[in-house]
Amino acid sequence: MQSQVCLPEVTKKRMIQLLQLLKAWPDEKITSSDISQQTGWKPSLIRHDFWLLGTDFNGVSNGYYKDQLSEIISRQLGLQAESFTKNICIVGLGRLGAALLDQNTFPESEFQIKAGFDSNVYRVEILRSTFPLYPASEMQFVIKRENIKYAVLAVTDKDAQSMTDRLVKTGIQGIVNMTNVVLKVPKGIKVENLSIINALKLVI
Amino acid sequence: MQSQVCLPEVTKKRMIQLLQLLKAWPDEKITSSDISQQTGWKPSLIRHDFWLLGTDFNGVSNGYYKDQLSEIISRQLGLQAESFTKNICIVGLGRLGAALLDQNTFPESEFQIKAGFDSNVYRVEILRSTFPLYPASEMQFVIKRENIKYAVLAVTDKDAQSMTDRLVKTGIQGIVNMTNVVLKVPKGIKVENLSIINALKLVI
Repeated sequence: MQSQVCLPEVTKKRMIQLLQLLKAWPDEKITSSDISQQTGWKPSLIRHDFWLLGTDFNGVSNGYYKDQLSEIISRQLGLQAESFTKNICIVGLGRLGAALLDQNTFPESEFQIKAGFDSNVYRVEILRSTFPLYPASEMQFVIKRENIKYAVLAVTDKDAQSMTDRLVKTGIQGIVNMTNVVLKVPKGIKVENLSIINALKLVI
Repeated sequence: MQSQVCLPEVTKKRMIQLLQLLKAWPDEKITSSDISQQTGWKPSLIRHDFWLLGTDFNGVSNGYYKDQLSEIISRQLGLQAESFTKNICIVGLGRLGAALLDQNTFPESEFQIKAGFDSNVYRVEILRSTFPLYPASEMQFVIKRENIKYAVLAVTDKDAQSMTDRLVKTGIQGIVNMTNVVLKVPKGIKVENLSIINALKLVI
């Protein structure tokens, strides 16, 4: 296994966005000024990020080879396809959770949805899905069996912390939190907050 | 109108999370160590954030009065209820966008959904919603008439940039981007990225 560098969260976020940009980029090469134009990041910031990635890039003055750049970033972030099919689950199958009930939410991504959970057994039975749904009572068992490491939390705010506590007990490593609640988790478990309301407050 | 301070994005994010925490906090007072325990932020970081807010807090040694703290933070972030009912729209009514078609997605929030848009006229006609839905062709007209300032973008990745360009032309001020695409917008328009795939990459 390759060693990964330890990157600041902001750099990691930018590099993940850059990977998306590279995927859609039509040419073979891309320059820092192209990247700057597409993202609004200053060229000096981009060069600093690349420096943090700790790898020599060829042809800085002519631009970077798109494929090479993608590969280096993916490797340094630990996102290489071969080492990286990650099993995830959706917890909470209300309107928002149910909208994710389709592997197509994650097109061409390295994440594979292995299970959906809800406390409401009726929902579990009637919803249609491309992967199996289970009552929340089977969470512990299914998450271990399916080797699920990450969860998307889409329960109501009221149930957010109690469901998180249950997820933590299953040994999950990371949670994408779509509720509006500040989750309390033990050290070592990562939480990324995707509350739409909080995002709206940030764009005003 | 009160003058707002200019805060770093990371501080703003933490303060918005803190507001959520305070809303749910059972006691009259809260200490930095309570906040630290709930959020994982170091007490020194919390004090630094408060210092950036630029306001004298009373009773630092005994903890802060919850209501007073909420009010100060809201004021400094420009989120006061009286000055702050913001009209938003949902653009793209596929699975994810359709999941937001209910004012209940935004319980007790200061945001009011005024419209939903989709290029697919059939979707606009059959979906049920607590607010009006329109074909995307009416976007310009409706956004101006309803005084909509912010948009949640939930279209497919393929349509993300072209729909953003159209939104920009309507004079929108901020976009919550739920697609996986890096959006290109003119200076002065804020974008907050809520891609679930990108969030998952951050928790691994």
